[in-house]
Amino acid sequence: MTIIILQSALTVNSMDLPSKLSGLSIPTLSPPSKRLVSHQLVLSRDGRPLYTLPAIVDPSTGAAVAESLLIAKYLDRTYQDKPSILPQSTQALQVAFLDILPTHPHPILQFTLQKITQNILSPESEVYCRMVWAAMPNVLPPGVHLDDAFPMESRAKEWEKLEKLFAEIERWIGNETFTTGATASFADFALAGLLQCFKKAWTEGSEEWERVICFQGGRWKKFLEDLQQYE
Amino acid sequence: MTIIILQSALTVNSMDLPSKLSGLSIPTLSPPSKRLVSHQLVLSRDGRPLYTLPAIVDPSTGAAVAESLLIAKYLDRTYQDKPSILPQSTQALQVAFLDILPTHPHPILQFTLQKITQNILSPESEVYCRMVWAAMPNVLPPGVHLDDAFPMESRAKEWEKLEKLFAEIERWIGNETFTTGATASFADFALAGLLQCFKKAWTEGSEEWERVICFQGGRWKKFLEDLQQYE
Repeated sequence: MTIIILQSALTVNSMDLPSKLSGLSIPTLSPPSKRLVSHQLVLSRDGRPLYTLPAIVDPSTGAAVAESLLIAKYLDRTYQDKPSILPQSTQALQVAFLDILPTHPHPILQFTLQKITQNILSPESEVYCRMVWAAMPNVLPPGVHLDDAFPMESRAKEWEKLEKLFAEIERWIGNETFTTGATASFADFALAGLLQCFKKAWTEGSEEWERVICFQGGRWKKFLEDLQQYE
Repeated sequence: MTIIILQSALTVNSMDLPSKLSGLSIPTLSPPSKRLVSHQLVLSRDGRPLYTLPAIVDPSTGAAVAESLLIAKYLDRTYQDKPSILPQSTQALQVAFLDILPTHPHPILQFTLQKITQNILSPESEVYCRMVWAAMPNVLPPGVHLDDAFPMESRAKEWEKLEKLFAEIERWIGNETFTTGATASFADFALAGLLQCFKKAWTEGSEEWERVICFQGGRWKKFLEDLQQYE
């Protein structure tokens, strides 16, 4: 979820519109933030509506939109004088790309979750996430504390897998600057959201973040630098 | 391989250049066709060079190019007055799409192979393929004849899986005509090559081909009709 919120922040920023980013704790997402999070995606197990992030409120139109792809489409439709986030000729291929990308962080996600809770989420959200993960045996074996679940010595292979998955993305992009050539678009913001999530979770200067930006000869350091014009 | 050859035939045709399609039997691919198949990809186990299809010879430049993506790039580079097969803004995303698409026919490939040998390949190629597949226990259990390996009653679930995978492609394309919007390109020729391979293997009017073109309310019948302008 953090990755997609970072992606949507980049999406909004790329439009060069005046905007204000608000962080919300997960437990406060229900009724009090109903105005901000208008898009009721699913019902929770006890039948109450669930509200989701990312979401935007556009004071110039009064629209409230949730879900990253819908936000991008809304912005393209509403601000046609700005550079398109999902150019028509790339839209289907970008959606396909967005289906694949979330599997790329899988190898290290298991031991990165604790860093996300510590370094990105608010204390209230951390409590909530630990409660949710504790009920998901594929994330956390029953009775095992998150901090003890993935000892350092078992992580080397997972980092190797991650590097191979990023090599795949490098091969796709080839000699281009971004996934959509010379101009960045939604798929690039998704990839940047993933990288920024790693950076925020592990923190700048950490051994883990240094490892990621050294993948493929520093390809992802350059990618984030090239993207700075959109921030 | 048949799918990729059909994809490259569409790629060449879309350029609207005079061309002649030659079919070659697999056993005749080595030295006699060396001129046609210039791209030596790998060495066989006994150390002899292996030649591959698809491949083109362009008499106007003298170039001989093998491998579908390299052929598309060669045509774009050489005939810049023709519509681009891999527009720059879509190239990386098309390559990513081409990485995913070959997994889509997997559910039914096991019992479609025999139809490909019977109805598409030459008798010489059929003998060669049966010999190769007989040595691949994941395709054909040892000692089992290809025609007996996948009884009809075990196939229903695999067809359901295939339909779900095509539903995914339908969701990616959304309301557009092609994967790259209003104008078709390389990713569309790959998808069409896959569909045409099914059609040729099962034959037009067969129950199996009717099933494929009825997936997603006839979406793929319409897709092939829309593509006819490029043939």
